[in-house]
Amino acid sequence: MKTVKILLLGFGVIGRGFAKVLLEKSEYIKKKHDVELRVVGIGEHNGCLVDEKGIDLKAALELREKGKWIDSLPQWKKMSAKDMIKSIPADLAVEVVPSDIKTGEPGVGLLEAALSKGLHVVSSDKCAIANKFSDLMVLARKQNKWLLFEASAGGGMPLMNLVRECIQADEIRSMEGILNGTTNYILTKMSRGGMDLETALREAQELGYAEADPTYDVEGIDAAAKAVILANDIMGMSKKFSDVKVTGIRGITKEAVQLAKKNGYVIKLIAEIKDNKLSVGPKIIPENHPLNIESNLNAVMFKTDIGKDIVIIGRGAGGRETQSAIFSDVLRICKDLQS
Amino acid sequence: MKTVKILLLGFGVIGRGFAKVLLEKSEYIKKKHDVELRVVGIGEHNGCLVDEKGIDLKAALELREKGKWIDSLPQWKKMSAKDMIKSIPADLAVEVVPSDIKTGEPGVGLLEAALSKGLHVVSSDKCAIANKFSDLMVLARKQNKWLLFEASAGGGMPLMNLVRECIQADEIRSMEGILNGTTNYILTKMSRGGMDLETALREAQELGYAEADPTYDVEGIDAAAKAVILANDIMGMSKKFSDVKVTGIRGITKEAVQLAKKNGYVIKLIAEIKDNKLSVGPKIIPENHPLNIESNLNAVMFKTDIGKDIVIIGRGAGGRETQSAIFSDVLRICKDLQS
Repeated sequence: MKTVKILLLGFGVIGRGFAKVLLEKSEYIKKKHDVELRVVGIGEHNGCLVDEKGIDLKAALELREKGKWIDSLPQWKKMSAKDMIKSIPADLAVEVVPSDIKTGEPGVGLLEAALSKGLHVVSSDKCAIANKFSDLMVLARKQNKWLLFEASAGGGMPLMNLVRECIQADEIRSMEGILNGTTNYILTKMSRGGMDLETALREAQELGYAEADPTYDVEGIDAAAKAVILANDIMGMSKKFSDVKVTGIRGITKEAVQLAKKNGYVIKLIAEIKDNKLSVGPKIIPENHPLNIESNLNAVMFKTDIGKDIVIIGRGAGGRETQSAIFSDVLRICKDLQS
Repeated sequence: MKTVKILLLGFGVIGRGFAKVLLEKSEYIKKKHDVELRVVGIGEHNGCLVDEKGIDLKAALELREKGKWIDSLPQWKKMSAKDMIKSIPADLAVEVVPSDIKTGEPGVGLLEAALSKGLHVVSSDKCAIANKFSDLMVLARKQNKWLLFEASAGGGMPLMNLVRECIQADEIRSMEGILNGTTNYILTKMSRGGMDLETALREAQELGYAEADPTYDVEGIDAAAKAVILANDIMGMSKKFSDVKVTGIRGITKEAVQLAKKNGYVIKLIAEIKDNKLSVGPKIIPENHPLNIESNLNAVMFKTDIGKDIVIIGRGAGGRETQSAIFSDVLRICKDLQS
């Protein structure tokens, strides 16, 4: 059995989700994939937990579940995550930091450090990837390392891996989809529940689907960042965030939603990648359209030259659901590593 | 660039679709996947077309499009497909014969011959695979060869490849889906169009969605064969066709469909794989359920332990759409072949 040494960069919701799923499924993964995934370092903003024999993930999780930091553990080192990347031998970095949408930092710096050190990288960090897609891909290619980021767009729903591994002969002509669960929840509540936007948003916040500051969701910015990633990765474009024509859902009234409904339509926040153009904005679609999915689900429709329309629907976010994508990327890389 | 020599077993709708897509996309495939796919033999029921330098697919297609057989071509040999498998050097067989649902023949014999000869195999032949799943998998493993059959269930929609390549850490708890496009078309017309079953069936036949003898579709047998394949391949079961509890849609009246509709429901022919049991039968689902897809589309919902609900919707059949799955399998195998 091969052992793959992992540096986990970030120990927030996604980072802890990774540790939890690894604890739960390491035996399954050993048996099915003949690989031991061993976390040898966890990078936090104020220091790192380092153990080349494998971090005690259970202890780290228990501390954090009690609201405590992990700096009381004996393996804690007052070093930066970048220094950990440079000094601790590993095969793969899992970067799950929430970066700034305007700069992509601190994620970009961590991704560059990991690739430069010769690590393969898996990332869920849409802000870093969307900001520096081309530079990071060039660096990964130069280093001959994998840089995979299925979790950065569409959470638990396979999109980039689906195209790369399952429809390899197809050319993707266009993509459209619902890439933000918060706004989909709001629009569903406005359509089915007859709520106005503010009430639906408050409900989404109470359920933890929306942040206290929901600007990035409601204004379409989150969906636009994901559209950039998908356009570049799946359709070979070189788009930036500023290339996306973005309209949010602030202007959608209860009356507009109800009028659409009366006529057999729904309003959805649709990201579209077509004819070398990217847009995110509210669109009216028939209620029997495959993209008319409810609650906080995400969905994407690929139009291809052979298989025609292929739609995938799944959970676009969630500390646990997102691990489906992260582990998928990790195991894809493990397949290529020597024992 | 590596050259992969292919024996194409069958030159019906799917076999000709393979030849057409290969003609159209061979340059794209060379460029993207660094592999030349070369058909060196086409097996028909009355003889074979053989050319180790590569069959002239265009000439063969042109003859057949004119309704003629390909036995007038100079490369025609009066040999059986099995003899061709034994005597013509190749890497991979693409078996696209329509076999008998009760015996799986002639597909089973061809698949056994190809694997025994040491060829990798891609098949769209649901009757052969469903009939002899375990025996064929044992033979493939013994020979250390790939036997892939994405096209045998769900046509252009990735299912087995999706689970194998894109959600590798997830355990699939259950699956349910619409695996037969003909009955979905009929039920859609009964719900949206207010038709009775016989009228909707006639329309499906006129459009070429249903065979002259629609028994296998309408009685749920086609869906049951696909459910056997998915249960065995994706969930590691050892089911046979006789293990599936099958009910068709013959008994569904226009009134029942309309009553469901009035209450916000639709009736769909659902295949379910759950708790080690397989069933195919009409079910009532809410109209906002992700499996409420229309026309002749297929859809499958996977329930997994990490990613939760993942739904995929696509074209379940079609001479062209199915090639998306066949070529995906072929290219997966090519990745593993030495140049």
